Amino acid sequence: MNRTPPDAGHRILFQPMEEEGVIAPGETVLDCARRLRVRLASSCGGHGTCMSCAIQVIDGAIPAPTEADGDAFSERRLDQGWRRACLVEAVGDFTVLVPPRSTAAPVRTQVDGQEAAVDLDPVIRDQVIEMEAPSIEDMRADDRRIMDALAEDTKLTIDLGLLRGLAPALRAWKWRARVSVLDGQVIAAGPPDSHALGLAVDLGTTNVSATLVDLSSGESLAAEGLENPQTRYGGDLISYAVYVRRNPEGAEILQGLAASAINQLAASLTAQAGVQTRDICEVVVAGNTMMHHLLLGLPVEQLAKVPFIPAEGEAIDIKARDVGLKIAPGGNLHAMSNVAGFVGGDHVAMLLAAARDSGDDVVLAMDIGTNTEISLLAGGAITTVSCPSGPALEGGHIACGMRAAVGAIEMVRIKGDEVRLGTIEGTPPVGICGSGVLDVVAQLFLSGVIGARGRLPGDHPRVVEIEGKRAFLLADEEQTDGPPIFFTQDDIRAVQLAKAAIRSGIDQLLASAGLGEKEIDTVIVAGAFGNYIDITSAQAIGMLPGIPFRRYAQVGNAAGDGARLALLSRAEREVARGLGLRCRYLELADTPDFQRVYIDRINFDE
Amino acid sequence: MNRTPPDAGHRILFQPMEEEGVIAPGETVLDCARRLRVRLASSCGGHGTCMSCAIQVIDGAIPAPTEADGDAFSERRLDQGWRRACLVEAVGDFTVLVPPRSTAAPVRTQVDGQEAAVDLDPVIRDQVIEMEAPSIEDMRADDRRIMDALAEDTKLTIDLGLLRGLAPALRAWKWRARVSVLDGQVIAAGPPDSHALGLAVDLGTTNVSATLVDLSSGESLAAEGLENPQTRYGGDLISYAVYVRRNPEGAEILQGLAASAINQLAASLTAQAGVQTRDICEVVVAGNTMMHHLLLGLPVEQLAKVPFIPAEGEAIDIKARDVGLKIAPGGNLHAMSNVAGFVGGDHVAMLLAAARDSGDDVVLAMDIGTNTEISLLAGGAITTVSCPSGPALEGGHIACGMRAAVGAIEMVRIKGDEVRLGTIEGTPPVGICGSGVLDVVAQLFLSGVIGARGRLPGDHPRVVEIEGKRAFLLADEEQTDGPPIFFTQDDIRAVQLAKAAIRSGIDQLLASAGLGEKEIDTVIVAGAFGNYIDITSAQAIGMLPGIPFRRYAQVGNAAGDGARLALLSRAEREVARGLGLRCRYLELADTPDFQRVYIDRINFDE
Repeated sequence: MNRTPPDAGHRILFQPMEEEGVIAPGETVLDCARRLRVRLASSCGGHGTCMSCAIQVIDGAIPAPTEADGDAFSERRLDQGWRRACLVEAVGDFTVLVPPRSTAAPVRTQVDGQEAAVDLDPVIRDQVIEMEAPSIEDMRADDRRIMDALAEDTKLTIDLGLLRGLAPALRAWKWRARVSVLDGQVIAAGPPDSHALGLAVDLGTTNVSATLVDLSSGESLAAEGLENPQTRYGGDLISYAVYVRRNPEGAEILQGLAASAINQLAASLTAQAGVQTRDICEVVVAGNTMMHHLLLGLPVEQLAKVPFIPAEGEAIDIKARDVGLKIAPGGNLHAMSNVAGFVGGDHVAMLLAAARDSGDDVVLAMDIGTNTEISLLAGGAITTVSCPSGPALEGGHIACGMRAAVGAIEMVRIKGDEVRLGTIEGTPPVGICGSGVLDVVAQLFLSGVIGARGRLPGDHPRVVEIEGKRAFLLADEEQTDGPPIFFTQDDIRAVQLAKAAIRSGIDQLLASAGLGEKEIDTVIVAGAFGNYIDITSAQAIGMLPGIPFRRYAQVGNAAGDGARLALLSRAEREVARGLGLRCRYLELADTPDFQRVYIDRINFDE
Repeated sequence: MNRTPPDAGHRILFQPMEEEGVIAPGETVLDCARRLRVRLASSCGGHGTCMSCAIQVIDGAIPAPTEADGDAFSERRLDQGWRRACLVEAVGDFTVLVPPRSTAAPVRTQVDGQEAAVDLDPVIRDQVIEMEAPSIEDMRADDRRIMDALAEDTKLTIDLGLLRGLAPALRAWKWRARVSVLDGQVIAAGPPDSHALGLAVDLGTTNVSATLVDLSSGESLAAEGLENPQTRYGGDLISYAVYVRRNPEGAEILQGLAASAINQLAASLTAQAGVQTRDICEVVVAGNTMMHHLLLGLPVEQLAKVPFIPAEGEAIDIKARDVGLKIAPGGNLHAMSNVAGFVGGDHVAMLLAAARDSGDDVVLAMDIGTNTEISLLAGGAITTVSCPSGPALEGGHIACGMRAAVGAIEMVRIKGDEVRLGTIEGTPPVGICGSGVLDVVAQLFLSGVIGARGRLPGDHPRVVEIEGKRAFLLADEEQTDGPPIFFTQDDIRAVQLAKAAIRSGIDQLLASAGLGEKEIDTVIVAGAFGNYIDITSAQAIGMLPGIPFRRYAQVGNAAGDGARLALLSRAEREVARGLGLRCRYLELADTPDFQRVYIDRINFDE
């Protein structure tokens, strides 16, 4: 996969981004878009099993529809040039319009968790030093001049990357400088009025968010999120592993994309705060083990197959430059510790920020996503499971699914034949995002359209046939002024499997501790998706326990806040490490009765 | 400077290396050779002031001789196509023969110092560990598996570079491995029967030599030297600094060349010993401050001008990969500490190997080269000077100078009109190397050809005129079957300046300690050049004190042996650091009477 245009092929123009290139013979529009770095959704990873990459050929040589396209789009839409990008190849020069649903620019990457208070004690300390200028009577080397000015008792070293730029800088600063010290090494320097900065990063499978903090005051200067650019290559953990196994350069490409996302956030946040990236002395990253390994360039093959072994479990401190981060030349990258399997530093960070002070309470803490990690804190012990809930709850692999962007259906109410839809920013609907997906299924069930087994009836006025399978029509072409939006039988099935995975995980955790769900004092639901879901919908379909609503806490981006705590305090970092070690990982496949519990949970509870 | 051939120009073929390329309009043959990585000497750095780059155009379009060429070569030689590569440009396609004198392949890079005995105590320790294979009951991450097997009391970390390749390797080795630990970090691993290796490098301005050792036994496995490829860009410290200042990519090019020389030695030595470069866990480098800074990519601008300040004085440990060394992915580079000015780790290493046990003796320890560093050890103190002796004593910037290669004149005896020459390997003479240079001047003086002021007489049968200046003919065209070999008035002057620099350095050292030369117990002469010179010749011209010959010790490559000691023993490394700190650097320009002493020493002592 590279950006070099192939030798032969046709011109392709992507609108509205106005990106032009050459599409090679045999290359699909989706592959071409990836190569040209054109943002185009692909929830199913390009396997033709969802509708997320729908595009419209609006000019030039229009390729004939494939059989699958014929099933998915109406005659009128096909005549208008609607196709799936993962199936269509060029037959001549053409122009492609990427509709909003397929551009996948999220508007709702939540970056603000509830900021927990912390005693400021960062691992990096600033000192302003004043040095004598060199002369023929004082020929000390630059490094000795710094050491003598620091007058530390213990022997310090100076990072080589820093040293490389330091000689001219010290002279420009007239021998007055801020130096930042980490564990006996000077890792950064700046003019005397600068401060050491830090970046707390929540590196998620779908979204990456970061908070820029001033390490000398502990103040958060700016926060921002963006879609993880790695999602172009799959969007779930196993897809990444497959991509890496099949492509010799796959690991390098994904590593570069993860680093570029962090660099992009660092550049944007420092610009917003009016500071310099070269003053960012440390990045703390919290991510699941797959994201962690891809960023660090660690092998993932053994991680993606039974028994799912990470190469690195411990928290690790490395030179940020070693993974391509563009911060202070000697800057540190602290990757929070992993637990086991796919349960990584993001879960540890979430526990640190949201669940550490649970005392004697029975607490269930989870971050719902493509993979849902859940910990049960009870009697001083922490037990953790990882549930392969799939991307359905985030709108992925759903026929008309999309990210939480403008026009995404986020709320659904069904009464008889009547359907009311709420979309993000109130525009005409273009697709369904995660919270909408949960709502659709809950409403289909609560309104009686579907029963315990989730089957769509053939005789409902809103049930249509798409590609030979039943689907529930949410919005027709008139309402959307584009393709219709529907929810298929397969989509319902995907949600059933997701909720069964999560709920049976909860069941097994409770069983392992000998507890019933009524004994849960608090359920912490973290993460962007968890922040927006309707808990009653989640309870209606049986995904979450039916305990009183007030026992639920939707805490937002707790992983990001945990990373911030680790950035600001050495003690918090140690607490995080301890939390990671305390988590007893329970492999669900290995628990008694798991298959039976799981299958039981697929149906809805009448 | 890059290898891409220019757009327009003529074909050029270099013989005997059969390297073909395009020479650009306005490009000299020397520049073209550098671009194409053709080995071609250039003692004066391409400024047309020496004869070291003499070549012969043997086919194609022969460029007309320049005026300077007309002065330098006879009519017959000019007709045969002899030119200086630094002056000649292309007038059409042509073939150039690079004669032996100009190919500069040294045969006498001395690598064997006297190997000092040492108590083996390397900073890197091997352990063979056995781990449980992962299973669904034992899902520990790879790193925890290693830590648990090591069962160290203190918390260890694992280098990221190592971790990146470790997951498949551990599985291939069936969970039995050798791990190498440095200061709390696992930096390398191998199959259970492998050993950690080390490389001791003497990184000289002219030559680079290395010894490969087994860190578990202390045994030296192989040793080798090669010409420093950086010499293409000057060959002396100031030329490098000028090159870096004038070329935006200069520092990077010189850094890459230094690393490539070490990589080449590592590859060659491991092949000789039947071991793997990936098992080299540490490289210890001893070099002067300029070589040290260029290898580490440190700035040299402030080092090359008054008051000559190194960016780094302390010994430094960095990841070898950070400077492009291809050893174990987590391997360490230890650069020995610098003293001040140009006095670097090579001098410290020399002191460690040759002069540390001087007791109450008065010891003068020196490494004669382009820059000559001298320490006086007396009464527990060490005083150090750096003398800009220039390249003349190594055959550089000498009209017919060359490296110590086959055919180099290394010994000269003059009696009346008769001249006897000894060459390396006894072949017809092609040029004069360092020890020959010293001999010529000594013999010219001792035989009475020149007097105290060093002027060549106009009436001696062997004194000829070259470029309007007098020169002493050592071998005519018949003897050499090539250009004649002569020694010019300028060459004599260069040796006078070199010997004056060294001797006045010695004088100032003795004066600063209130000692006379008769009180010197031992003179240690280290280095390849120092090993081959005739001490009596050096005494005859007044370069070295006239004390009894038995007080002299020619110890060979003591710097390389010092690097070996630091590699094999933590204690030795600490002794070296202490020696570096003990050296009191005496800036000669700053000592009283220096100018007078220096000028006095230019003349010979009748």
